[in-house]
Amino acid sequence: MPKVVVLHGPNLNMLGVREPDVYGTTTLAQIDQRLALLADELDLEVLCRQSNHEGVLIDWVHEAYGEGYDGIVINPGGLTHTSVSLRDALTATGLPVVEVHLSNTHAREDFRHRSLISPIAKGVITGFGADSYLLGLRALAALLS
Amino acid sequence: MPKVVVLHGPNLNMLGVREPDVYGTTTLAQIDQRLALLADELDLEVLCRQSNHEGVLIDWVHEAYGEGYDGIVINPGGLTHTSVSLRDALTATGLPVVEVHLSNTHAREDFRHRSLISPIAKGVITGFGADSYLLGLRALAALLS
Amino acid sequence: MPKVVVLHGPNLNMLGVREPDVYGTTTLAQIDQRLALLADELDLEVLCRQSNHEGVLIDWVHEAYGEGYDGIVINPGGLTHTSVSLRDALTATGLPVVEVHLSNTHAREDFRHRSLISPIAKGVITGFGADSYLLGLRALAALLS
Amino acid sequence: MPKVVVLHGPNLNMLGVREPDVYGTTTLAQIDQRLALLADELDLEVLCRQSNHEGVLIDWVHEAYGEGYDGIVINPGGLTHTSVSLRDALTATGLPVVEVHLSNTHAREDFRHRSLISPIAKGVITGFGADSYLLGLRALAALLS
Amino acid sequence: MPKVVVLHGPNLNMLGVREPDVYGTTTLAQIDQRLALLADELDLEVLCRQSNHEGVLIDWVHEAYGEGYDGIVINPGGLTHTSVSLRDALTATGLPVVEVHLSNTHAREDFRHRSLISPIAKGVITGFGADSYLLGLRALAALLS
Amino acid sequence: MPKVVVLHGPNLNMLGVREPDVYGTTTLAQIDQRLALLADELDLEVLCRQSNHEGVLIDWVHEAYGEGYDGIVINPGGLTHTSVSLRDALTATGLPVVEVHLSNTHAREDFRHRSLISPIAKGVITGFGADSYLLGLRALAALLS
Amino acid sequence: MPKVVVLHGPNLNMLGVREPDVYGTTTLAQIDQRLALLADELDLEVLCRQSNHEGVLIDWVHEAYGEGYDGIVINPGGLTHTSVSLRDALTATGLPVVEVHLSNTHAREDFRHRSLISPIAKGVITGFGADSYLLGLRALAALLS
Amino acid sequence: MPKVVVLHGPNLNMLGVREPDVYGTTTLAQIDQRLALLADELDLEVLCRQSNHEGVLIDWVHEAYGEGYDGIVINPGGLTHTSVSLRDALTATGLPVVEVHLSNTHAREDFRHRSLISPIAKGVITGFGADSYLLGLRALAALLS
Amino acid sequence: MPKVVVLHGPNLNMLGVREPDVYGTTTLAQIDQRLALLADELDLEVLCRQSNHEGVLIDWVHEAYGEGYDGIVINPGGLTHTSVSLRDALTATGLPVVEVHLSNTHAREDFRHRSLISPIAKGVITGFGADSYLLGLRALAALLS
Amino acid sequence: MPKVVVLHGPNLNMLGVREPDVYGTTTLAQIDQRLALLADELDLEVLCRQSNHEGVLIDWVHEAYGEGYDGIVINPGGLTHTSVSLRDALTATGLPVVEVHLSNTHAREDFRHRSLISPIAKGVITGFGADSYLLGLRALAALLS
Amino acid sequence: MPKVVVLHGPNLNMLGVREPDVYGTTTLAQIDQRLALLADELDLEVLCRQSNHEGVLIDWVHEAYGEGYDGIVINPGGLTHTSVSLRDALTATGLPVVEVHLSNTHAREDFRHRSLISPIAKGVITGFGADSYLLGLRALAALLS
Amino acid sequence: MPKVVVLHGPNLNMLGVREPDVYGTTTLAQIDQRLALLADELDLEVLCRQSNHEGVLIDWVHEAYGEGYDGIVINPGGLTHTSVSLRDALTATGLPVVEVHLSNTHAREDFRHRSLISPIAKGVITGFGADSYLLGLRALAALLS
Repeated sequence: MPKVVVLHGPNLNMLGVREPDVYGTTTLAQIDQRLALLADELDLEVLCRQSNHEGVLIDWVHEAYGEGYDGIVINPGGLTHTSVSLRDALTATGLPVVEVHLSNTHAREDFRHRSLISPIAKGVITGFGADSYLLGLRALAALLS
Repeated sequence: MPKVVVLHGPNLNMLGVREPDVYGTTTLAQIDQRLALLADELDLEVLCRQSNHEGVLIDWVHEAYGEGYDGIVINPGGLTHTSVSLRDALTATGLPVVEVHLSNTHAREDFRHRSLISPIAKGVITGFGADSYLLGLRALAALLS
Repeated sequence: MPKVVVLHGPNLNMLGVREPDVYGTTTLAQIDQRLALLADELDLEVLCRQSNHEGVLIDWVHEAYGEGYDGIVINPGGLTHTSVSLRDALTATGLPVVEVHLSNTHAREDFRHRSLISPIAKGVITGFGADSYLLGLRALAALLS
Repeated sequence: MPKVVVLHGPNLNMLGVREPDVYGTTTLAQIDQRLALLADELDLEVLCRQSNHEGVLIDWVHEAYGEGYDGIVINPGGLTHTSVSLRDALTATGLPVVEVHLSNTHAREDFRHRSLISPIAKGVITGFGADSYLLGLRALAALLS
Repeated sequence: MPKVVVLHGPNLNMLGVREPDVYGTTTLAQIDQRLALLADELDLEVLCRQSNHEGVLIDWVHEAYGEGYDGIVINPGGLTHTSVSLRDALTATGLPVVEVHLSNTHAREDFRHRSLISPIAKGVITGFGADSYLLGLRALAALLS
Repeated sequence: MPKVVVLHGPNLNMLGVREPDVYGTTTLAQIDQRLALLADELDLEVLCRQSNHEGVLIDWVHEAYGEGYDGIVINPGGLTHTSVSLRDALTATGLPVVEVHLSNTHAREDFRHRSLISPIAKGVITGFGADSYLLGLRALAALLS
Repeated sequence: MPKVVVLHGPNLNMLGVREPDVYGTTTLAQIDQRLALLADELDLEVLCRQSNHEGVLIDWVHEAYGEGYDGIVINPGGLTHTSVSLRDALTATGLPVVEVHLSNTHAREDFRHRSLISPIAKGVITGFGADSYLLGLRALAALLS
Repeated sequence: MPKVVVLHGPNLNMLGVREPDVYGTTTLAQIDQRLALLADELDLEVLCRQSNHEGVLIDWVHEAYGEGYDGIVINPGGLTHTSVSLRDALTATGLPVVEVHLSNTHAREDFRHRSLISPIAKGVITGFGADSYLLGLRALAALLS
Repeated sequence: MPKVVVLHGPNLNMLGVREPDVYGTTTLAQIDQRLALLADELDLEVLCRQSNHEGVLIDWVHEAYGEGYDGIVINPGGLTHTSVSLRDALTATGLPVVEVHLSNTHAREDFRHRSLISPIAKGVITGFGADSYLLGLRALAALLS
Repeated sequence: MPKVVVLHGPNLNMLGVREPDVYGTTTLAQIDQRLALLADELDLEVLCRQSNHEGVLIDWVHEAYGEGYDGIVINPGGLTHTSVSLRDALTATGLPVVEVHLSNTHAREDFRHRSLISPIAKGVITGFGADSYLLGLRALAALLS
Repeated sequence: MPKVVVLHGPNLNMLGVREPDVYGTTTLAQIDQRLALLADELDLEVLCRQSNHEGVLIDWVHEAYGEGYDGIVINPGGLTHTSVSLRDALTATGLPVVEVHLSNTHAREDFRHRSLISPIAKGVITGFGADSYLLGLRALAALLS
Repeated sequence: MPKVVVLHGPNLNMLGVREPDVYGTTTLAQIDQRLALLADELDLEVLCRQSNHEGVLIDWVHEAYGEGYDGIVINPGGLTHTSVSLRDALTATGLPVVEVHLSNTHAREDFRHRSLISPIAKGVITGFGADSYLLGLRALAALLS
């Protein structure tokens, strides 16, 4: 059974707590539950982790490689636009990466329409709220099968 | 039962015919079949249309509005980066739009990483080959339910 | 009696149908009627045509030249910002061109404040809704007299 | 009867005196006369003022607000491209503003194609010589009615 | 007792009169009164002046130097972004300059986030409404002591 | 005998009709005749087609591939600078493409010095009037031999 | 009594230790003491914290929200120009944020004149050394009263 | 005998008073005296005027035209980089204009290396302190002879 | 009989010696032979010269003018993108210039797609290897006849 | 005996583990061994440390200063292009810094050719694989002697 | 008696030979004669040299330093915009440099308005034809006295 | 024994003669002596050459290839930023190139931080004065062994 890690970047622990008009009322725990259910359906093992620390996320990416995970779904949060190091870590693993975003970042006029992660991802899914994660897991499952 | 139109832009009729290393060997007809099957599963009515003509695509977008369709999945092909008019047409309908691309356009260094359609789409899915369409239809179904 | 063609670009057939908060509730047919009335007052012959197809608009511009029209009022819609070919067609006729827009495109922060047509037009009128057309016809009439 | 102020910016007092090949031989006094005639026809009260001083023009904009004028037609001359303060003054009044230019500024390759005033104007009319003013007054009259 | 001049640039005479949602209902006279009170508390002599004329403001800056003032608090209004001459005048005096703004200009997406005055000011305070002036006077008092 | 298609983009049907100072007095029909004569000399079969419609040109490019043509000479006219879709169509065929222009587009200060087609063409010939086509056919013949 | 957290970003622990010509000889501990004294005067509770770790600062911002703090004064140090995640954390709390800097960042010719934090702050104070913090606390106190 | 006006822009009245390390200790009065002496030698009539007001300088440029002056030497000061209106005034007179600067503005890294006046001047002289004026008068004399 | 000079810029003496995958195995001597043969056929006198020195090439351009040559075919090599002086020399002669390149420089993503020579050339031919020279000579012959 | 710290930034712990075609098969431990040997030869004390956490690296830079180290060799990895805070930390220590990179970052077309660290380093060495470190240590030794 | 070298860059040997409408009919020899006469009047020794070779000009600049010249007047021709090496040579001598141009380079819309030499020159004189040289020599004489 | 050529670009013959504060007092001859000594130690044959002429340097690069040299150390001086032809020459040889600079060019704010040579070099060493050459020779020796 393929193993997949889902990484949530900075501030995603605040989901459902603040700014519900932007990000909805679903909490991160609820998203992780939905991901676990879908993983069962897709015959995947899934591990969900969140951190506000770039360094911790990089360590986890290295761990995913070291522990034989088969793919990564990541919502890099604010690091999307600033972390060359996280990008390098993902590249270094050689694993397929699916980047997801809750909101449609392409609709932003500012710096947010450009992701440092997208160029090294297999694919990108943005704009469907919590469903972005589920579609991302589904996409990764298809890539792994 | 919600009705959805899937629009294929210029050159997508060449899918599976040329450049298989970039776009795979699946033909457009095969994609449309897979979309029809998934539509059944998701209880949607789906209509698939392809044109190399910007004007025809705009006419079809207007028709989708006039005939009461509930949403649009679109792969605008090369018009992604150039057609303000297609964007205006999509905006004018007020329908939810899901933009899909076969390849990961964000990995392109050139003009292709920027889409004129994305800012007015609900969400965007890129990089999963023919699966991008299926994920897009699934995403639209979730938006409509 | 001078003959004038009024060309409406992509999506203007949707006027009064969608987005009334942006473009008002007047339909294109109503604008054409008001133009016909004003043409009578100004002793002009006027022909109004709309298309969503760049190529059709270019053909009509060529026709205007071939059939001896004396000037062109044009609202190029989304082609304003993208069609070098339409611009070339207008230039090729050597006829005086008046460019009109319903909304004040200069107030747009995005790509819409720049028109490819304006540099080759005699003059430009933006922001007065349907009145932009009437002012445009009046301006052209003055140029022709 | 609505009251309208027409403001002429720097160097417009030189109209008809120098560079007739660019701006024609009509003097500013003649334009003001034609504006007065048209105001009569449109049942408007019109006041025409010219200054080469940005500060004086700003004072006059404030006066227009203080003395209950209903709208402003302005040809900001060279201040079009440089005066944030004049723009702020016009915004502060809350009055409808119509910006006019004698020549088609959009045909300029240089800095002149961009106006600081246009984004806060109701509409803009360029390229019709002295007729730009008359069309502008007409447009404002329509806005006020 | 140190002497300080507070300069208000173009349109600040309109404070409290128009656009209260942006700038509040406090008038310039009320701000000047609050500045006078605080000056007493800080043992400063303060002179408050407003003009819509760049040239007048420059003359006043020269006067401040000629009459032995010890520092300048300035809200340059729209000249913030356009007046190299006002900047040169401030530099020429050699006096400490504190730049203040009512609104947070850094939150503006447009040209307003860049000030020509800031690089030659001792410090800058933005975003606290009328309090920006009071904090500015306090900051200047600290610099002078 | 190798088969070659020569495609003329928008407005080239106006050749010799308008703007003779820019493009000369030779008509498109005369160019096609000269191309036919040269094709005979070079032992090529040549088909010349003109359209003002981007979509029609794309369809013809697909046809060229489908009907076993060996190469394409194209003057994309105004689409040179705007049509990603035409570029994609040419790329998709895998045929050698020679881009030609009547005037020296590199001498233009504006957007015209940059072609979207050139990067995917085998070679480019500009500036020699109708001779550009003849040189282009000759170049393609050499590539095919 | 309102509660305020003051956050010091990377390298501010080096204050007074190195580069006294740029940042003075006051240490961070001395600034925190002055802030405590002023907080007493303003009837505020104040908590001062410093970290070189972006992730720790984000955690502390979340804590400030969780533990009912009423506002944040922050000197983001080098993160000012690079941390979208810290910006997102501040936005997510919905608390009023006052950004302060010791030196006048606007006088920098390089990347330092642009802050990612300023657009989401209530106001910004730069250039007054340690006094920037005191003015910032004062400004926040006024916002909270 | 040809008549020449020498115009000094904003802040030049401070020459010799402040910043002697940048601009030397020569006062404007002394420069005007040296210009008068050289004018005698060159058989010119010269009038020297200084203002901090853009509007006044524009009025004086118009006067120079109205009163039959033959040429203009101008140091536009800070208006060099910002005043389109002053540029328009100079252009409108049709008189030969020589632009002079005390310091070498081309050595500035910032906005100062670009002048709005230079493109419409006959020639430009920068970097020779007060001598720039004398060389400028000499250059204009040669142009007029 | 018209006389034509063919100039080869820096590094073209290495043709056929290094990087055959980029430039083929034809040597410069072989190209010159083919040019001589074609010149005979076209009734031209041709002189071929190569130098790695910008100054020498400029001297030769001047000589071409001085000795009555009728046109120039030039492959400026690396000077294409950097030599304003070579461009000036070509302009100064007033002779028709045809610029040729072995590879399709327009396909380069970097600085190479922009030529300083093209704007002053009659026409440009790129991408056909050694044939670019032959086509260039042919094009020049047509211009001279 | 001078003391030197060698800092390895994010992902350098993956050296020799992944992407051997880019970075070779040498592990970080092997590089540290070679550095230790060279340090002996150069009579230096050397301490090698790696972290994926920007904050930890900054803390270590501060420690180097606190514990009397004499210089720093650093390969900042992905932080090269993003960490203003790490740059500030290095500057704050006042120690000589030598920046090294395994690959030639200048050959990258993307953002990687620009380093935030280089402007404050004594010197930079790139492109020699593990030898870059050894050359860097040698360079620092020379600076310290 | 101070010694001055006057350097003429590429193509200036063509002065008076070609493009008289741009540069007049005066030859370089005539300019050198006028410079010799003025040098006598100013009690200077002057040496005039022209080359189309950047390297030769650099050698001459070094010679000027080695042989004790006191200043340099230079018209760098096309090297103005491209030669960092010539700039470095001039800087290395430490001699005062006066840059002159025949035409007003600031009036050029293209790359020509920016000089690499100007930032390291004492002053710049442009636009007065051959008189630019004479004014430049006069300016240098004043600098040397 | 491997043979290496060391090329010094324009103005490096002035080393130790002028601007000792920037480049030190070591002359080029002394550097060449140190290089010869190190070459002995590393068992290399080394040839050092300097020229101010781009063309001469290109000829020497070709010679290095023709005479069987194994690598090149080059300090291109001012040509670093301007010579595409020198870059092409180095590329054409296929030899390993090590680029060195005396000063840290990355610390320059201006055009100097970008090198045209670096992208085609094996590695780059900057900032260590004359030691940059020695480190460069050492790096090349390692590449060749």
